[in-house]
Amino acid sequence: MIGIFDSGIGGMTVARAVEQMLPEYSIVYFGDIARTPYGSKSAATITDYSLRNTEFLLQKGADIIIIACNSASSVATEALRREFQVPIIEVITPAAQQAIATTSSGRIGVIGTKATIRSGIYEQTICGQRPDFHVFSEACPLLVPLVEEGWINKQETKMIIRRYLHPLRDKQIDTLVLGCTHYPLLTELIQARAGKRVTLVDSSVETAKYVRRFLNEQPQLITREEAGTVTHRYYVSDLTESAHRVARKIFERPLELLLI
Amino acid sequence: MIGIFDSGIGGMTVARAVEQMLPEYSIVYFGDIARTPYGSKSAATITDYSLRNTEFLLQKGADIIIIACNSASSVATEALRREFQVPIIEVITPAAQQAIATTSSGRIGVIGTKATIRSGIYEQTICGQRPDFHVFSEACPLLVPLVEEGWINKQETKMIIRRYLHPLRDKQIDTLVLGCTHYPLLTELIQARAGKRVTLVDSSVETAKYVRRFLNEQPQLITREEAGTVTHRYYVSDLTESAHRVARKIFERPLELLLI
Repeated sequence: MIGIFDSGIGGMTVARAVEQMLPEYSIVYFGDIARTPYGSKSAATITDYSLRNTEFLLQKGADIIIIACNSASSVATEALRREFQVPIIEVITPAAQQAIATTSSGRIGVIGTKATIRSGIYEQTICGQRPDFHVFSEACPLLVPLVEEGWINKQETKMIIRRYLHPLRDKQIDTLVLGCTHYPLLTELIQARAGKRVTLVDSSVETAKYVRRFLNEQPQLITREEAGTVTHRYYVSDLTESAHRVARKIFERPLELLLI
Repeated sequence: MIGIFDSGIGGMTVARAVEQMLPEYSIVYFGDIARTPYGSKSAATITDYSLRNTEFLLQKGADIIIIACNSASSVATEALRREFQVPIIEVITPAAQQAIATTSSGRIGVIGTKATIRSGIYEQTICGQRPDFHVFSEACPLLVPLVEEGWINKQETKMIIRRYLHPLRDKQIDTLVLGCTHYPLLTELIQARAGKRVTLVDSSVETAKYVRRFLNEQPQLITREEAGTVTHRYYVSDLTESAHRVARKIFERPLELLLI
């Protein structure tokens, strides 16, 4: 079973992509809505929460863990790999690899939460492989609350995106990483502002592709379900209207959220 | 010692007012930054956190507890009064009383978080005393993240305030309750939008006044400090840049935040 956790509901964009690309596997998801958001909290607190979330998913039978949150991936991956024996997949590496594969100019933008941007993880990962590349990062802390409020097409959201992307305008980037699993819900507005010549890289979709390759190579690490026994369970630590609304938007169907 | 808790840093507007109006008492504050915000979470989760926060303050020697958070005051006051023997003071009653004292027309607006507005507590409190009054409420969930980002004078914040206050424009209110302890930081923008004929009621200041009256009437309930032994300790469950910045803004001095 594939275990996936996030600070809340943003990681459902990863879960949705995994459902579609890996229909033969069961999923157990945990969204830590009671302590959301992670992106504005400290690395120590995010790591503590990530350890507890992983324990929960392992108790529920997960064979591998996807950290479907850029903030937690940025600061907690090493701690999880030290603590647990199962494969731990994070969202940074897949997005960084796709950005490297996409760019022609070697000039890549990254947007994410404060925790993600402050960690410098995208620069390290990209420039670790390609020291000749340039990475320009901007923290966009208000985009998560805007998405959670459903303000996906509002004028204020457009203005805030414009303000956040402004410092990237003269950097001649040709690739922009959506380094937060909430941001795919703002793809249209971000693309409109970044311009046609900039290719967006969606960490959610890239992570699902990465998991598919990983499980093709290492099929022994996970139990493949019999046809008809695949189950998808979505646990949350709190139930809110916003969670129901955003989940429905991401999955394009009503989703049963199980309160732990 | 006066114990004060909040979901994070908004409650420091109450603590600051208490420091100024009751300089002869020590304060122990707890800001639950690791689990902030409360206002978009469920009543059950907010109550659970409020119980734990109160236990922490009592362990630190608090004689009375101020719930310096409208969301927690709205949904958790009864549970705290059932669970603990000490006086529990919440922020709704002082603000509601002041609104009743202020209005001429009997038409009162209230803005707050989703948890506060959904609870209907201001209507119940105001109309419980004055059934002839009319209360018009609007949830403003994005104002807390905007304040925490320090976007106190930004054009986007003005637009968002305009959008939130729009439904109140034709209600002929003459009084508007700032039903969230973050909102005093937005007083100017809210006043500008509400118009000169509307008087703002600040739940933070009213609560400090209420505590002063309460302790004048019931001085036996709390240990009065000897001159020179007053201490103010500010505990938090996480340390973030935003917390330091907003605390400094509220107190107009650097504040030592103690991580628990």
